[in-house]
Amino acid sequence: MLAGVTLSAKKAMAGEVALIERIRARAQARTRGALRLGIGDDCAVLAVPSGHELLVTTDFTLERRHFRREWHSPQSVGHRCLARGLSDLAAMGAKPLAAFLSLALPRELTGAKNKWLEGFLDGLLALAAQHGVPLAGGDTAESPSKNVLADIVLLGSAPKGRSLRRAGARAEDDIYVTGALGGAAAELELVQKTPKRFANARADGGHPHLFPQTRLAVGQALLRRGLATACIDISDGLSTDLAHLCSESGVGAEIAEAALPVHTGATLQQALHGGEDYELLFTARAGTKMPKKIAGVAITRIGRIVKKREMTLIAANGKKQPLEAKGWEHFSG
Amino acid sequence: MLAGVTLSAKKAMAGEVALIERIRARAQARTRGALRLGIGDDCAVLAVPSGHELLVTTDFTLERRHFRREWHSPQSVGHRCLARGLSDLAAMGAKPLAAFLSLALPRELTGAKNKWLEGFLDGLLALAAQHGVPLAGGDTAESPSKNVLADIVLLGSAPKGRSLRRAGARAEDDIYVTGALGGAAAELELVQKTPKRFANARADGGHPHLFPQTRLAVGQALLRRGLATACIDISDGLSTDLAHLCSESGVGAEIAEAALPVHTGATLQQALHGGEDYELLFTARAGTKMPKKIAGVAITRIGRIVKKREMTLIAANGKKQPLEAKGWEHFSG
Repeated sequence: MLAGVTLSAKKAMAGEVALIERIRARAQARTRGALRLGIGDDCAVLAVPSGHELLVTTDFTLERRHFRREWHSPQSVGHRCLARGLSDLAAMGAKPLAAFLSLALPRELTGAKNKWLEGFLDGLLALAAQHGVPLAGGDTAESPSKNVLADIVLLGSAPKGRSLRRAGARAEDDIYVTGALGGAAAELELVQKTPKRFANARADGGHPHLFPQTRLAVGQALLRRGLATACIDISDGLSTDLAHLCSESGVGAEIAEAALPVHTGATLQQALHGGEDYELLFTARAGTKMPKKIAGVAITRIGRIVKKREMTLIAANGKKQPLEAKGWEHFSG
Repeated sequence: MLAGVTLSAKKAMAGEVALIERIRARAQARTRGALRLGIGDDCAVLAVPSGHELLVTTDFTLERRHFRREWHSPQSVGHRCLARGLSDLAAMGAKPLAAFLSLALPRELTGAKNKWLEGFLDGLLALAAQHGVPLAGGDTAESPSKNVLADIVLLGSAPKGRSLRRAGARAEDDIYVTGALGGAAAELELVQKTPKRFANARADGGHPHLFPQTRLAVGQALLRRGLATACIDISDGLSTDLAHLCSESGVGAEIAEAALPVHTGATLQQALHGGEDYELLFTARAGTKMPKKIAGVAITRIGRIVKKREMTLIAANGKKQPLEAKGWEHFSG
């Protein structure tokens, strides 16, 4: 159409349709469950289980903001793109229903022979298959710059009125985290120094930054067993996500430095402020019998909620200092 | 977190949170209906009406691909961003439940005093209010380039198994369109020549390119009254969207040139191939009593479906020629 002629040079028909077809061909084998109609119509159609409510989250994955092609393989970018959304569902105890991908590629990556898209879909669809999530639709475009631009939408479901929230923590609640902290930040440092060492990193190889694991099974178990009073995923860093949880709950927190499950090879600062670990941070009433593991993932008590709206870090020697939120922030003030 | 330090310069806390808060403050007054939990948690929570299925669509609005700041006011960009998604819901006869906006702004537009975001939200939220759609969440980031990047997600609902589809047209069905065609392409030409004339264009001023109206009420009526066998919205141009409908239905079409409702000021070529009119193109069994207007919008019969998988244009003198799909296409082959 004319907008096409003038907003960008007029293109042959083959292009976008071909890209959609490439994605559709890869995605279709994995449609299932709630998905009634996938890629190819104006909308996808889904069934939400009866008695359940719908959960929705959207997350950008923008080149030079969230990844660099020099550091991240296309498989890692695809995996991380989906993981961001899955982790938001995990934080609310939801089961994933479907994913939608909006993807804009720079011209250099759109050729039929270019392998970047294949690698990206390999990474994204492998993680999707692991969690039984169909890729149900999205949008494609040519990027207006040299950057790959992706936006992932995840839909999930949870029993009505029971999804885990950030608000809900009360004074005297205990504070827990899953897994270990700081691993993603520590690995990113190494990737930046020696990217070639990580070029063939695999999703099952224990790469907390390149291929983070999300805690869907833990979130679902917390919801099902009624264990948590509030929950958030650690995407921006423990200090920042704890600040979000405290802010929404109208409380403060004391964190015991010695209790933090610091990832092997990570520093205390990385555990406190490093982002993208995608572990869960949650609270439970004092006295709750908390398992040491849930769905095979270690659960560690790291502190407690207090009434005063401040965050405090208690050192091993008992000395208290303010804990500042120093995690990920896209925009400057 | 460290990714923040290294993938982009370390930022103060105020930035992204401030942007989210600005959007949240504007959006919240309009939450209602199906929306149980809006912006501020890891996911939004929605209720899908019982007996209904969920419809989902996502659409990019990328600067220099879909708009230019020299030509489009921020109000127009916001309106058009939402209209793209609403029109996909209209094409399937769905009622909108909620919208989600992922928005990346270049640094120059993120200042608290910059008015671009306010204008963009004015345009988007005015159209959202017109159709009773809450802005329920999304994501924000700093754009990695000078371009504004937006991705809109629309969720809607329709009675189970009854949403309108592209597949379903059969030989001998009549072909209809709503409203008039080519107006958006014609206005875009004028906007490009004399952008200043359009700087203060208003949503209610009859601007088919800058402020397209979507046909939600028509789509819902077609579904409710069981009038249509197949339906699609005209976003890429009549010729291209007719090709999509024919392809999904496994049929061909004959279009009568003289019957086309060409918009005042538009050419035949613009009516055939111009995109972004956001009218509906639908088919109905021959003999269906079709109203001349639905929800106040003119309905015009423009041709019929044929068995042979070809598209033909019949001139006023009866001469037949192939109708090629020449509409919008982002990528080159």
